Amino acid sequence: MKIAMLVIGNEVLQGKIQDSNSKELATSLLTVGKKLSYIITISDEINLIVATLQQLAKEYQFIFTSGGLGPTLDDVTKPALAQLVNSSMSFNQTALDIVSANYARNERAYQSPNQSYHLLPDGCSALNNPSGFAPGLKTVYQNCTIFSLPGVPHEFQSILNQEILPSLQDIPLLPFTIKTARIPESQIFNQLCPNLWQELEQYGSVSSLPHFFGVDIGVLLAGSPQSIDKQKNQIIQTIENSPLKKYVIDYSDTPRDISQIIVDKCIQKKIKIGFAESCTGGLNSDRITNVPGSSDIFMGSVICYSNQVKQEMLGVRTDTLVQYGAVSIQCAEEMALGLLKNLKLDFAVATTGIAGPGGGSKEKPVGTVAIAIASKSSVKSEILHLKGNRLILKQRFSQASLLNLLEAINS
Amino acid sequence: MKIAMLVIGNEVLQGKIQDSNSKELATSLLTVGKKLSYIITISDEINLIVATLQQLAKEYQFIFTSGGLGPTLDDVTKPALAQLVNSSMSFNQTALDIVSANYARNERAYQSPNQSYHLLPDGCSALNNPSGFAPGLKTVYQNCTIFSLPGVPHEFQSILNQEILPSLQDIPLLPFTIKTARIPESQIFNQLCPNLWQELEQYGSVSSLPHFFGVDIGVLLAGSPQSIDKQKNQIIQTIENSPLKKYVIDYSDTPRDISQIIVDKCIQKKIKIGFAESCTGGLNSDRITNVPGSSDIFMGSVICYSNQVKQEMLGVRTDTLVQYGAVSIQCAEEMALGLLKNLKLDFAVATTGIAGPGGGSKEKPVGTVAIAIASKSSVKSEILHLKGNRLILKQRFSQASLLNLLEAINS
Repeated sequence: MKIAMLVIGNEVLQGKIQDSNSKELATSLLTVGKKLSYIITISDEINLIVATLQQLAKEYQFIFTSGGLGPTLDDVTKPALAQLVNSSMSFNQTALDIVSANYARNERAYQSPNQSYHLLPDGCSALNNPSGFAPGLKTVYQNCTIFSLPGVPHEFQSILNQEILPSLQDIPLLPFTIKTARIPESQIFNQLCPNLWQELEQYGSVSSLPHFFGVDIGVLLAGSPQSIDKQKNQIIQTIENSPLKKYVIDYSDTPRDISQIIVDKCIQKKIKIGFAESCTGGLNSDRITNVPGSSDIFMGSVICYSNQVKQEMLGVRTDTLVQYGAVSIQCAEEMALGLLKNLKLDFAVATTGIAGPGGGSKEKPVGTVAIAIASKSSVKSEILHLKGNRLILKQRFSQASLLNLLEAINS
Repeated sequence: MKIAMLVIGNEVLQGKIQDSNSKELATSLLTVGKKLSYIITISDEINLIVATLQQLAKEYQFIFTSGGLGPTLDDVTKPALAQLVNSSMSFNQTALDIVSANYARNERAYQSPNQSYHLLPDGCSALNNPSGFAPGLKTVYQNCTIFSLPGVPHEFQSILNQEILPSLQDIPLLPFTIKTARIPESQIFNQLCPNLWQELEQYGSVSSLPHFFGVDIGVLLAGSPQSIDKQKNQIIQTIENSPLKKYVIDYSDTPRDISQIIVDKCIQKKIKIGFAESCTGGLNSDRITNVPGSSDIFMGSVICYSNQVKQEMLGVRTDTLVQYGAVSIQCAEEMALGLLKNLKLDFAVATTGIAGPGGGSKEKPVGTVAIAIASKSSVKSEILHLKGNRLILKQRFSQASLLNLLEAINS
């Protein structure tokens, strides 16, 4: 069974929005044992949509489309489907029921003369949209089933999860992931473990995804739950007996962000954490609070963009700022210790640096960051010089400080 | 001139990473007057890559590929290019110079027997990679030029900006954007301004992008700088004379996040801001500090996930927490007023709510949020009930609170 995704939208081709629905679809399909083979993005032109669907239907048994179901003139997915199946639009009672209920849920009335959500090409069926207005559509064309979903991500996601995936259920595929840190990709596979790739390929297709500060090695496993468990154990055994062992920070069933690993560890060890953030500007706190359950271990943070906040809320001394500057290990350590004390934490993480574009100097160029990790027994700090634009630097400052935190918690 | 993007990577098709390079390419091309027509994502298979390039080269004059240039076995873009142009790999002095310099910049030595960055198919030329190791490639095939760039976003971006875009310079296209709030898409185009779409289409292709709390209306303008200025003024005139006027929060040359609008306004009005964040967990601070120049107006924040931090750092009273709970307008107001005072701000924004999945009750279900905006003269608050999963709710809580802040600053 081959599956393709067709993203319809000038907004994506003009770079106004990031298509995130393909990623959602790809991830969700794995949970029901299916792989996405192909993603294609085209503009909102009826003839182009029809021609693309005709072409895709020759090779793919399922096509998912996103976008073009809204009420404006550039929403042409429905007319394109009508042209594809050679039909006009007609009244559809299921569609009207769905859209009326969706309007009612939002305390509004659906006005059918002004809107066309209740009109569908003949042969299309309507799918409930649990979090928006426009119904999704299911169209059977030749040997292919076309699911047409709205482009708004939470609507795409809820129709996919509630209306479509249950009907596709199969044996899951598991993207087992070995997360490493502090070693570059080329060193792992060319020097440290030259046969690792081939060894892992016995279990399923292998991928290597370099991140800042590390590499995620993925193996796509298939089989019964028992067989998958056995394969996972064998892979872990292989790694634990290899020189890669000391670089591994996580084994997991899907790639996990370091924030999730930290929250799990803290819950397990009953550790309370918080952040004193200058240059990361809230990103560390945001990442940790994206993880469900983080409220059990994350107490809070002080975002101290101004020196005044560093002094008044964290107790950084005037002397320290004058003598060493705000971007210094001395300042970072005082920030971390001040937060640890004020918030009664087990671990406090401080970040102070220069994300740019302005603010750099010859001695402390843009990309300089001081990171400190304070615990009840010690405070450790380092200064790093990283590269990138403002957004990339914020991410790298954050990634470096979270990695230090994880290592401190583990040690 | 037609331009296509070919994303190569199983990691994208398995949903492990989000392809952001297409968006970067699309946005960058507009600045040199070019449009991206097509994006396609395929797996790391040599024969498939070759066949896709052959097919695309018939229709497109430029193809950008991303991914598959690294050192591991699943990096097959170079072998695919070699097969496409029917050539073997051979030593390339420019590539060796580039990669040696890139290694030296990172204080490492390039070891050519172990690595293959210096080997290129004949007829490919090497492009400098200012922020990574692997050189980009330029291949001329039939009437098409193929640029092959690494998948790592900051490497993709820096090769594109520094090595390719200057050679494509043309008259820019401007995605002029009218940003609205507090009105749904269907109401704008079906009821309030039924002729607006056609009026705007006189100037260029029109798009409508609904967001939570509003709609971005885009018009793609072309012409000389003078002509573009004139068109912009005419469009603004049209809107200012229409009933849509009161819903407009920004006119801009490209779509701007509300955080950018806020930072600009605050700089212009010399206003100092900060956030007392419970349920948004640092997201508001993170968004504001993503904007260059925000350090002039953003003093800092207190992320108060625990009640203890709400009390000790912001002065929320025990009585308030006992009588009304942490998710209440009373608590939000005390948080905002406490922050305003402690950080000496002009405007303080407080958010306290339930992002889920746990923590909801019948009276205060997941999605409940209290938002308060305090200034030196007043404090205003509201309670909202929003829908979504944890990440969507954090975004909506953030968006709602930033919109309230913008309106308070403007009023």
